[in-house]
Amino acid sequence: MQKSEEIVAEEALDGSRFMPGLSVDCVIFGYHERELKILVSKFKNTSYYSLPGGFIKRNEDADEAAHRVLFERTGLRDIYLNQFYTFGNTHRANPEPMKSVMLANGIEFNGNHWMLQRFISIGYYALVNYTRAEPKPDFFSESCLWYDIDDVPKLMQDHLLIVKKALETLRNNVNRKFIGVNLLQDQFTMGDIQKLHETILGEKLNRTGFHRKMLNSGLLKRIGKKKTGGSHRAPYLYVFHSDEE
Amino acid sequence: MQKSEEIVAEEALDGSRFMPGLSVDCVIFGYHERELKILVSKFKNTSYYSLPGGFIKRNEDADEAAHRVLFERTGLRDIYLNQFYTFGNTHRANPEPMKSVMLANGIEFNGNHWMLQRFISIGYYALVNYTRAEPKPDFFSESCLWYDIDDVPKLMQDHLLIVKKALETLRNNVNRKFIGVNLLQDQFTMGDIQKLHETILGEKLNRTGFHRKMLNSGLLKRIGKKKTGGSHRAPYLYVFHSDEE
Repeated sequence: MQKSEEIVAEEALDGSRFMPGLSVDCVIFGYHERELKILVSKFKNTSYYSLPGGFIKRNEDADEAAHRVLFERTGLRDIYLNQFYTFGNTHRANPEPMKSVMLANGIEFNGNHWMLQRFISIGYYALVNYTRAEPKPDFFSESCLWYDIDDVPKLMQDHLLIVKKALETLRNNVNRKFIGVNLLQDQFTMGDIQKLHETILGEKLNRTGFHRKMLNSGLLKRIGKKKTGGSHRAPYLYVFHSDEE
Repeated sequence: MQKSEEIVAEEALDGSRFMPGLSVDCVIFGYHERELKILVSKFKNTSYYSLPGGFIKRNEDADEAAHRVLFERTGLRDIYLNQFYTFGNTHRANPEPMKSVMLANGIEFNGNHWMLQRFISIGYYALVNYTRAEPKPDFFSESCLWYDIDDVPKLMQDHLLIVKKALETLRNNVNRKFIGVNLLQDQFTMGDIQKLHETILGEKLNRTGFHRKMLNSGLLKRIGKKKTGGSHRAPYLYVFHSDEE
């Protein structure tokens, strides 16, 4: 371990800096080539995969903690990030995964270590521009990578439940403007937005019905045809109206 | 203070029994005579009003804690109760209101007392049958009473924000079956359910449009006319279909 990493590790392990028993976990969604992906970290020298997460500093808002985690893992600021559920079941109090992580990192601890106590975790989901994010692992992790939502490795603790609940929230909001604004390019065809909805919902949608609904929603503005090299069947391009919610 | 109350107070003040820095706050909605009401407690010998709330025991799920608070304040079990948002801002760390409450109750404390630390609170909202609830204060409070949602006394800390966020959640869900099932009588007229929606939304709705929407929703089943003593203009009675979500 290098010197700078040691300092980071020491700070990260100093329980007095954080709200006890509380964490944030982030489901970071990206959309690329018609696949919905999330970021997953793998702990060094273990078989544990987890959502990017962290603790809440004593002088930090919970939302700030989530933004900090998101920035540290993706290099992105000013991202769409929303709290969606707080996971407070007692079955989260299983210390075994964190024991393995600490052992794998050569960290000395006893059974009362604050990181082995019961944690209640505030779940956030983020929508990021896949092409702009630069995922990087923290010093506990050997990787932090995008995984297709249908091909996520086995996650530790209740992190799969956290992903499911985040996806449920995304599905409930699929018609809201912020989903498309954050996951599509600035200009898109009706086919692009239909595919985004289908990917989020995990089901095919009727083309005619979907187009009618989108056009009636008042969210979209047609800005011309896509340049496709002269075909008369070139699709229209759309942007979101800037003033609609 | 009587003996039994002393034991209760001692237990309630024993920080080792609870998750540190965490609380639940409940916005308990009831509907009566076309008014939407919430339960508000007033702390003994202070001017502080608050939402019913409490702490999470170390061996208790967060949801269980909220159900326990709800039962203690209303005598009701098996109530519709849902987590809606977790309040985690640092400005919640103001110890002054709790200091006043502890002084007013003759509780000895120093500045490091666990109840004076920063708390993050998980917000729950409940929908209860107003006529079945029997509100009762805890031993810190001199009253626990229903207040019309438009006439709530000045609440301590950020409890007004918690109420607003709960009401926002209720409004976003106004068309969902669970709202009517939990706030209306078993049988109701179209006028009853329109009035409920208007009260929650805080605005008048077009009668024809509302009736059409409700009939098209597939949620309602017509079961006959209301007995009103022979008038031929007696309104129809409805119940919710038992199999629809």
